[in-house]
Amino acid sequence: MGAERPAVLDESGAVRDVSGVVSDIDGGLFAGDGLDRIRTALAGGALPVVDPGERIGPPVARPGKVVCIGLNYSDHAAETGAPLPAEPVVFFKAPNTVVGPNDRVLVPRASVKTDWEVELAVVIGRTARYLESHAEAMACVAGYAISNDVSEREFQLERGGQWDKGKSCETFNPLGPWLVTADEVPDPQALGLRLWVNGTPRQNGKTSDMVFGVAEIVRYLSQFMVLEPGDVINTGTPAGVALGLPDPKPYLREGDVVEVEIDGLGKQRQEVGQA
Amino acid sequence: MGAERPAVLDESGAVRDVSGVVSDIDGGLFAGDGLDRIRTALAGGALPVVDPGERIGPPVARPGKVVCIGLNYSDHAAETGAPLPAEPVVFFKAPNTVVGPNDRVLVPRASVKTDWEVELAVVIGRTARYLESHAEAMACVAGYAISNDVSEREFQLERGGQWDKGKSCETFNPLGPWLVTADEVPDPQALGLRLWVNGTPRQNGKTSDMVFGVAEIVRYLSQFMVLEPGDVINTGTPAGVALGLPDPKPYLREGDVVEVEIDGLGKQRQEVGQA
Repeated sequence: MGAERPAVLDESGAVRDVSGVVSDIDGGLFAGDGLDRIRTALAGGALPVVDPGERIGPPVARPGKVVCIGLNYSDHAAETGAPLPAEPVVFFKAPNTVVGPNDRVLVPRASVKTDWEVELAVVIGRTARYLESHAEAMACVAGYAISNDVSEREFQLERGGQWDKGKSCETFNPLGPWLVTADEVPDPQALGLRLWVNGTPRQNGKTSDMVFGVAEIVRYLSQFMVLEPGDVINTGTPAGVALGLPDPKPYLREGDVVEVEIDGLGKQRQEVGQA
Repeated sequence: MGAERPAVLDESGAVRDVSGVVSDIDGGLFAGDGLDRIRTALAGGALPVVDPGERIGPPVARPGKVVCIGLNYSDHAAETGAPLPAEPVVFFKAPNTVVGPNDRVLVPRASVKTDWEVELAVVIGRTARYLESHAEAMACVAGYAISNDVSEREFQLERGGQWDKGKSCETFNPLGPWLVTADEVPDPQALGLRLWVNGTPRQNGKTSDMVFGVAEIVRYLSQFMVLEPGDVINTGTPAGVALGLPDPKPYLREGDVVEVEIDGLGKQRQEVGQA
């Protein structure tokens, strides 16, 4: 990670290096005036272009926490046999699961049930504490990205009662390629989400089917914890995960290729390896 | 937190400022040679003494994650009506719950079941990934501290199925006062843990009663996640929490005073406020 440089996508689609403008794209940048400085530098037109072949890191460095919302699409709740939640189900991923959008995902040692989950990730831009309205909540959102909430179902569901154990393995949160700022996503509840494994379409949902939308999730979470700039919220996955498919369930194995896409947020591609 | 300075306790019991030697006591310090530099500076004898009246911050700055082990003392499992776990129960606290050992603990808004939990905290000093033995695990431990794993029982148990929701409220993890390095704790399974509320003894356990000891916890967790320098593990609490007491259960309220002690690790004192 030490060799990563912060970059932005300009209007022509070129990737431009902003390492001369900001030290990184992280919580400190959102809390300060970093986004404005990047916009000014972009308008100036003198930022160096990055080789399109370079590896892409996650678009948020070192999130303080990765909060996840479970069973937040009715079709996914149904496929896992769970009732629709009366209020958001909340769990965490270890923040060091976050990797670049095209980095390898590793099947953990002793794992036989590694699964995929396309999710809309919300990146927090302002401290959120006991928010009282959806408008206040949306003002705390810096932007959005694609998240693959990789999950080991045996670790999650059969090994001791709390889900975090199956959500926090190394490489389990490809994020990006881009952080799309909130001003460029007029309605986060109007996005299509899709995921393929080895070219086979597996998930094809829309954020309008969320049980709890982005504004309610941020407002709700702020009653239970303090969200800080750079925190990431994975807002749940639609139907189509391996866990919900007929036996033999096609859990991920070394050599598989996962592709993930959300309208306007780009595309990910992960090769699956073995830890 | 910006005004906190790193400090150490010398052999005479004086607190000495090491801000001229290391930038902070955090994961980077454990991963590098920071502890050695502090030891050398201490031996030199020229470190300034800190006013004993100054506020004490947590002894680890910005942990990357706070991992918790649930139901890890048989008497506590029994008092909560849970069976003894066959393998460690794992959940997380939001890392920004960590505060100083004597900072105020805030009862969350809408909370009626805020509870205490004295725990032995393990601080990780080296990256732990797929460890194969207890010896390897112990080599990854930087040291130990007192943790109060404050918990909101309604949020944890009655609001949607995963415990993290009741474990991550603002101020919910007083830590310290000291990080006692592993070389000064010959046997982490031979420590008494005690907690009082308003002077009434509530918890009085010993780490020899843990279901899974420190070495096994670190080895086990490393199969499911990568532990990094500066990460904190709360290793579970013995019996005596409010949840396990007869009705009306004495959950914490504004004005209560909690005192927490572990043999050789110092003492905490928190006044309870209202968020």
